[in-house]
Amino acid sequence: SRCGFPEVVYGEGKPAELIVEILQRQAAAGQAGFVTRVSPEQAAVVQQAFPNVHYNHVARTLTMKNVSAPGVSDAEPAVAVISAGSCDAAVAQESLETLRWMDVPAVLIEDVGVAGPQRLIKHVPLLQRMSAIVCVAGMEAALPSVVGGYVSCPIIGVPTSVGYGASFGGVTALLSMLTCCASNVVAVNIDGGFRGGYVAGMIATRAASSRDDD
Amino acid sequence: SRCGFPEVVYGEGKPAELIVEILQRQAAAGQAGFVTRVSPEQAAVVQQAFPNVHYNHVARTLTMKNVSAPGVSDAEPAVAVISAGSCDAAVAQESLETLRWMDVPAVLIEDVGVAGPQRLIKHVPLLQRMSAIVCVAGMEAALPSVVGGYVSCPIIGVPTSVGYGASFGGVTALLSMLTCCASNVVAVNIDGGFRGGYVAGMIATRAASSRDDD
Amino acid sequence: SRCGFPEVVYGEGKPAELIVEILQRQAAAGQAGFVTRVSPEQAAVVQQAFPNVHYNHVARTLTMKNVSAPGVSDAEPAVAVISAGSCDAAVAQESLETLRWMDVPAVLIEDVGVAGPQRLIKHVPLLQRMSAIVCVAGMEAALPSVVGGYVSCPIIGVPTSVGYGASFGGVTALLSMLTCCASNVVAVNIDGGFRGGYVAGMIATRAASSRDDD
Amino acid sequence: SRCGFPEVVYGEGKPAELIVEILQRQAAAGQAGFVTRVSPEQAAVVQQAFPNVHYNHVARTLTMKNVSAPGVSDAEPAVAVISAGSCDAAVAQESLETLRWMDVPAVLIEDVGVAGPQRLIKHVPLLQRMSAIVCVAGMEAALPSVVGGYVSCPIIGVPTSVGYGASFGGVTALLSMLTCCASNVVAVNIDGGFRGGYVAGMIATRAASSRDDD
Amino acid sequence: SRCGFPEVVYGEGKPAELIVEILQRQAAAGQAGFVTRVSPEQAAVVQQAFPNVHYNHVARTLTMKNVSAPGVSDAEPAVAVISAGSCDAAVAQESLETLRWMDVPAVLIEDVGVAGPQRLIKHVPLLQRMSAIVCVAGMEAALPSVVGGYVSCPIIGVPTSVGYGASFGGVTALLSMLTCCASNVVAVNIDGGFRGGYVAGMIATRAASSRDDD
Amino acid sequence: SRCGFPEVVYGEGKPAELIVEILQRQAAAGQAGFVTRVSPEQAAVVQQAFPNVHYNHVARTLTMKNVSAPGVSDAEPAVAVISAGSCDAAVAQESLETLRWMDVPAVLIEDVGVAGPQRLIKHVPLLQRMSAIVCVAGMEAALPSVVGGYVSCPIIGVPTSVGYGASFGGVTALLSMLTCCASNVVAVNIDGGFRGGYVAGMIATRAASSRDDD
Amino acid sequence: SRCGFPEVVYGEGKPAELIVEILQRQAAAGQAGFVTRVSPEQAAVVQQAFPNVHYNHVARTLTMKNVSAPGVSDAEPAVAVISAGSCDAAVAQESLETLRWMDVPAVLIEDVGVAGPQRLIKHVPLLQRMSAIVCVAGMEAALPSVVGGYVSCPIIGVPTSVGYGASFGGVTALLSMLTCCASNVVAVNIDGGFRGGYVAGMIATRAASSRDDD
Amino acid sequence: SRCGFPEVVYGEGKPAELIVEILQRQAAAGQAGFVTRVSPEQAAVVQQAFPNVHYNHVARTLTMKNVSAPGVSDAEPAVAVISAGSCDAAVAQESLETLRWMDVPAVLIEDVGVAGPQRLIKHVPLLQRMSAIVCVAGMEAALPSVVGGYVSCPIIGVPTSVGYGASFGGVTALLSMLTCCASNVVAVNIDGGFRGGYVAGMIATRAASSRDDD
Ligand SMILES: Nc1ncnc2c1ncn2[C@@H]1O[C@H](COP(=O)(O)O)[C@@H](O)[C@H]1O
Ligand SMILES: Nc1ncnc2c1ncn2[C@@H]1O[C@H](COP(=O)(O)O)[C@@H](O)[C@H]1O
Ligand SMILES: Nc1ncnc2c1ncn2[C@@H]1O[C@H](COP(=O)(O)O)[C@@H](O)[C@H]1O
Ligand SMILES: Nc1ncnc2c1ncn2[C@@H]1O[C@H](COP(=O)(O)O)[C@@H](O)[C@H]1O
Ligand SMILES: [Mg+2]
Ligand SMILES: [Mg+2]
Ligand SMILES: [Mg+2]
Ligand SMILES: [Mg+2]
Ligand SMILES: [Mg+2]
Ligand SMILES: [Mg+2]
Ligand SMILES: [Mg+2]
Ligand SMILES: [Mg+2]
Repeated sequence: SRCGFPEVVYGEGKPAELIVEILQRQAAAGQAGFVTRVSPEQAAVVQQAFPNVHYNHVARTLTMKNVSAPGVSDAEPAVAVISAGSCDAAVAQESLETLRWMDVPAVLIEDVGVAGPQRLIKHVPLLQRMSAIVCVAGMEAALPSVVGGYVSCPIIGVPTSVGYGASFGGVTALLSMLTCCASNVVAVNIDGGFRGGYVAGMIATRAASSRDDD
Repeated sequence: SRCGFPEVVYGEGKPAELIVEILQRQAAAGQAGFVTRVSPEQAAVVQQAFPNVHYNHVARTLTMKNVSAPGVSDAEPAVAVISAGSCDAAVAQESLETLRWMDVPAVLIEDVGVAGPQRLIKHVPLLQRMSAIVCVAGMEAALPSVVGGYVSCPIIGVPTSVGYGASFGGVTALLSMLTCCASNVVAVNIDGGFRGGYVAGMIATRAASSRDDD
Repeated sequence: SRCGFPEVVYGEGKPAELIVEILQRQAAAGQAGFVTRVSPEQAAVVQQAFPNVHYNHVARTLTMKNVSAPGVSDAEPAVAVISAGSCDAAVAQESLETLRWMDVPAVLIEDVGVAGPQRLIKHVPLLQRMSAIVCVAGMEAALPSVVGGYVSCPIIGVPTSVGYGASFGGVTALLSMLTCCASNVVAVNIDGGFRGGYVAGMIATRAASSRDDD
Repeated sequence: SRCGFPEVVYGEGKPAELIVEILQRQAAAGQAGFVTRVSPEQAAVVQQAFPNVHYNHVARTLTMKNVSAPGVSDAEPAVAVISAGSCDAAVAQESLETLRWMDVPAVLIEDVGVAGPQRLIKHVPLLQRMSAIVCVAGMEAALPSVVGGYVSCPIIGVPTSVGYGASFGGVTALLSMLTCCASNVVAVNIDGGFRGGYVAGMIATRAASSRDDD
Repeated sequence: SRCGFPEVVYGEGKPAELIVEILQRQAAAGQAGFVTRVSPEQAAVVQQAFPNVHYNHVARTLTMKNVSAPGVSDAEPAVAVISAGSCDAAVAQESLETLRWMDVPAVLIEDVGVAGPQRLIKHVPLLQRMSAIVCVAGMEAALPSVVGGYVSCPIIGVPTSVGYGASFGGVTALLSMLTCCASNVVAVNIDGGFRGGYVAGMIATRAASSRDDD
Repeated sequence: SRCGFPEVVYGEGKPAELIVEILQRQAAAGQAGFVTRVSPEQAAVVQQAFPNVHYNHVARTLTMKNVSAPGVSDAEPAVAVISAGSCDAAVAQESLETLRWMDVPAVLIEDVGVAGPQRLIKHVPLLQRMSAIVCVAGMEAALPSVVGGYVSCPIIGVPTSVGYGASFGGVTALLSMLTCCASNVVAVNIDGGFRGGYVAGMIATRAASSRDDD
Repeated sequence: SRCGFPEVVYGEGKPAELIVEILQRQAAAGQAGFVTRVSPEQAAVVQQAFPNVHYNHVARTLTMKNVSAPGVSDAEPAVAVISAGSCDAAVAQESLETLRWMDVPAVLIEDVGVAGPQRLIKHVPLLQRMSAIVCVAGMEAALPSVVGGYVSCPIIGVPTSVGYGASFGGVTALLSMLTCCASNVVAVNIDGGFRGGYVAGMIATRAASSRDDD
Repeated sequence: SRCGFPEVVYGEGKPAELIVEILQRQAAAGQAGFVTRVSPEQAAVVQQAFPNVHYNHVARTLTMKNVSAPGVSDAEPAVAVISAGSCDAAVAQESLETLRWMDVPAVLIEDVGVAGPQRLIKHVPLLQRMSAIVCVAGMEAALPSVVGGYVSCPIIGVPTSVGYGASFGGVTALLSMLTCCASNVVAVNIDGGFRGGYVAGMIATRAASSRDDD
């Protein structure tokens, strides 16, 4: 538990039995496991072993502890996960589940892409109160540029592989985020929903814990 | 004069004497020549032969006729050339000079990049009256995505080669424009200020001339 | 209906039920919906809900209103959709269906690639009367260069992903269109039939409506 | 002063007089200007107008206020800027100057590339006390992967364009950081020293200010 | 048997019958055949013809002679095959099987990626006694850079195609190895487990045989 | 003189004295030397040693024998070198000089790019009598596609590095030629004027010599 | 029959019925059809309609006339098709079938890749008598470089998409052929077996027909 | 002196004074320094401080000890450095100087590119006695493929950045070496003469020292 959180399991291609085994080891060590990139088939096997595990079939994540539904907790959210379009949902929800597993109060705002400018504007006051924002977008990924103009916290850009042709499987979105004119934007790998949520959670935790220190 | 306009000369690498010769031939044919990518050294030679030629040293264009200063003509503009940042000036002005040479009333709005959202908003009513918009931007080129959300005319995106690193000499801006979520955006080559202005001018001319037909 | 047309639905990956729901909402608002990238399976579900919907299985589009067959309407066409080869049919027809949905009179001219020069020549007089041309081509995409030499209206180049090897899924065709020597050519994304038709339709509409204003 | 800090000026290609003018405007507004990518020639002109301006000729930055020398301030550093090799100095110092201008106590640790593992180890205890780390590296950029294994704060990876051949002007370093196995690493543009420092400073400021709130 | 070893068969896409035929020819010539990239289906057919053939279903290799299990032989290992993560297993085992077929005593050390630095450290004394090291890693492939700092023998880097997004199917790992700061690192093709093992085996054999010459 | 022609010297970066030395050796062996990529400075030195050498300052070639001016010889041309634009002149002339040095009667037809279709048409009857055609073009390189539709001999496409932005230094022209729809088109390297002329000359020589055999 | 040969049909993705229809039209016009990229399923349908059609299931071609088996005709071959490895067979045979359909006497020499130098040497005298050589190779494609050193006729390099990792689906082989040091090598598209055979056939036909003219 | 050799200095961009300082430190520690990528200007300054330093102006290396001229030592060479063309000289000599500084007896064989096959053949018996071969080649880099077919020792391929167009600054040569059919070839970075020589020297040293152990 190097960073204050137990090791996260990358489920892709792992036999379901191996995932169960790792989770059992973590459970024995008193850790709440978290697995990403889990197929429905893998999830079914794990749920046999751990009936209370939480599987989000959009995010394709497994969480080994009780997590409150987003928006239900009465804590003021510290991180917002925003996404440009409905096809970005899987990645956005992977960020969200990561934050819930980290116990960071988070809010999800979907489908606020810049082609419909009024959709974003109404969320600006909320966004301005965040410790960090995860901004999920594909294709030309104009969203972080626009959000960056309204807020003063770090924005973690997560490019998605949606789209066709010159989207090049997320490369265009990634390059767009890296060259973004707003100074508070950084980027992670294409479809890197886990990392986007994780780093945003770290920033929020750090801010909150220093608050609690006092 | 295939498209209703005389052939435009691409000045890059041409001996100044050759440019003079071509312009003389066009003048003899009663055509008003237009030359792009002209260095100050080339311009000086041409201005010896044609003292009244107009050289725009930002756009690096030469125009062989009287063009009214932008904003001075009392015609309502039909095309807006907008640019994201001050480093896009050369390309934006190349578009503008092309439009002036085509006698299309045009307006130039610079430095309205999305990192400062309020800078663009105040121009929206004007933009909504245009026949076409030339949108010049480099790096992540988020501007056409945002403008596309406000207007209903075609937008010609002109990516610029400004920036460093992952800007890749304008490739990122080009890919961004090609994958732009707004449905009314098309793209031309990197630093293609002439073509951006030319096609916008064609659209505006066509609209206006059909109006005049009646 | 930002641009005078209702929002177009991008069908790829959307559950058929969601498409039905969106179309019902649009119908309730008195709008004629249009859906692109629709699989036969999705189409079958939508057609259950809306028996009169028009599904073009080549273009893979769904249109929610009566559209006259191309060539049947007695209006002189304002836009020509031309394609280089028979493998470009799906993209060309997506452009055509977009134009029909926009009520822009359009004509489709297929298989006029430049390797057989006489095939194109006979259509030149028709092409010279258009307000805009959508030019669909794959591989080396020489067609817009050649057409651009004959006409004086804007040409929207739509690269297609056909071919193998150095076609690179349409990248070669896209680069070819972007560097096209004819000044009246712009480009959209690879396989961007919808956008090609949409922008051509906007140009034609704008020209026609200004005519009607008088 | 959108993010609590005045607008930073990008000096590249700007006439020195324009830089002076912008800084005068900022000074009049009571803001301490900061300019990046400033050549010695530009700096000389600015220093005529503002004799007390601080020019770092390695970082090529101009700062308009008194900044304490790094390591001299008695505040415990909140951010470490670490670099892999001596050729990364310009970028690392750009990050450092950004942090000094933001009044974030920072420490610079250079030349701790992984090819000499013992060089890094001795700094690990210090690194473990940081709020954020800026990690500057070129070529294969293995440094963030290794540092990421020792610390629990966010690491902003800044790839540099040093090297030859397969370094591809920093692209390899950038891709390496984006695919880094350590979950706490994000990336910015190649040679993006300013942004690296800026986002690290934001994280540190946020942590510290929440501490001060109490 | 050009290099002192019989020709190795590349199984990919070969009909199983053709593989059997080649192996029979080699057996008749007194050679111990070795086949790489063998599917379970191909292996089943070959095993019908040669019941004692050894099929490693992780490495997907077939070996036509008795090979001692790794670690079982009492010879001090001359080559270590090390890998960064569990997803690199297939490639690492292909290297290992190649070495076993060459009768080069080898040891396999898996899952010692740099994100968990203590995992590697304990193997350093063993690594320092090797004649050559095969280093298998994907994504940012930081492992050879780190190992290169501890040992003085040649390291053959084998990039793997694991990962997503900016891993680009192993390209990032390959570029990383090619630009590696440690001077003793060379690279082979992505997923080139066979070649990595083969060249390491050649180096070890050469060292050992010169020892035996005396 | 492997292929019936003496070795051609690639002048780029060679000291002029070395070029003189090689030519002297060839002269002593009774061979007529040919040097490509020769700067004016190198040429001046060589011309000191060999006053009758022919230097073409556009093609940047040196020829060590009397070559008749193109078009002057009364032999019917066997190869046509055609180019799309005036910026392709250096490459086209390199092809032409190669053919003259090979004693292959050749004709040069410049500036017949497809944007002006009538310019090419008038040369078609001549082109249809050739043994081979060298087709030099940059940017989208539509010329070989069009010429390929009119003739039945092999066409050697030579892409040129002219243009900007998405021309990518000739890559677009190269890809265009490789994916050309006309079946009689092959390609050589970007700016490969020498090879284009050489292979065309080989084809013509072979046809002619078989004629002479009888 | 523009080039003296009827139009060749590209079968990929065409309904079998359409292929039958085209072939019937060609048969009615007295032409012997040739179809490439034909799947076994398409072939079966065509063979129903034309029982005597020749289907090569390696080359995946259909030929509508009697072709003598290669090597059986007593004409001295004019073209050699050589390939580097056994995985290049499909492409090499597509070239061969094209030549047989053109009635050009041709010889196929497979598996003479340069890693086994003695395999090629014995064919050199035969190769030196050819009018043209089609050289099919994948991966690093060293074969044309080596063959080019032995012969004096044009070599048409056909890169194949075999291999993994840095083979990049044939891109490496293509680039290798384009930069080949031997001056008599040109290239066609990746997997372009048809074009390789077609252009080689044209060269041979041209040489032979000029011989027959006398 | 991690690998038994002192740290090698990378001279590119380092102030000459810094190089002097590092060499003085090494001299004081009894080490013989070696500096690569040294300009004549840097060399002149260093030679002021150390009159006996050896500067190779082709290789651009500085060596701080007496090295025997290549071929002069009576030791049988253990490593051959071979290069394809005369433009590869700088890189080949960098490898050679590295080996001389390591006291590894080495031989340099230049200009044996495969386009002239007989040039290589005569050196094969010598090459077959080597412990390792450094193979330097640009453009299509066919040389290692061919040499690999004759010898049984490891070959370190060093791609060079010579050539134009599709050579892409050495990328084609690098890809060619990585996909080389000969199993004993590995690759290093483009223009990586130092690393090529260094790893070859390590292999030879290891073989020789094990011989001396006995
Ligand atoms: N979706 C994900 N993307 C990237 N890294 C991940 C993901 N999920 C888990 N990881 C990381 O993968 C590592 C675990 O890999 P493994 O040992 O294969 O389960 C941990 O360092 C995690 O932080
Ligand atoms: N085939 C298409 N290619 C690109 N964009 C499209 C396509 N079809 C619809 N759109 C756009 O996609 C948006 C709707 O996306 P969605 O909300 O996911 O249905 C609208 O802005 C449409 O203009
Ligand atoms: N996994 C592999 N990757 C690359 N080359 C291989 C592999 N396995 C065998 N080879 C080489 O492929 C050649 C044999 O190819 P083939 O004749 O098609 O069986 C030999 O030169 C082997 O050294
Ligand atoms: N395998 C092939 N690769 C490339 N072009 C081909 C191939 N087979 C046929 N062609 C060409 O494709 C064109 C016919 O295409 P289509 O109109 O689709 O029948 C003709 O010009 C042929 O020369
Ligand atoms: Mg988006
Ligand atoms: Mg911009
Ligand atoms: Mg086409
Ligand atoms: Mg580094
Ligand atoms: Mg790894
Ligand atoms: Mg051209
Ligand atoms: Mg091959
Ligand atoms: Mg070479």
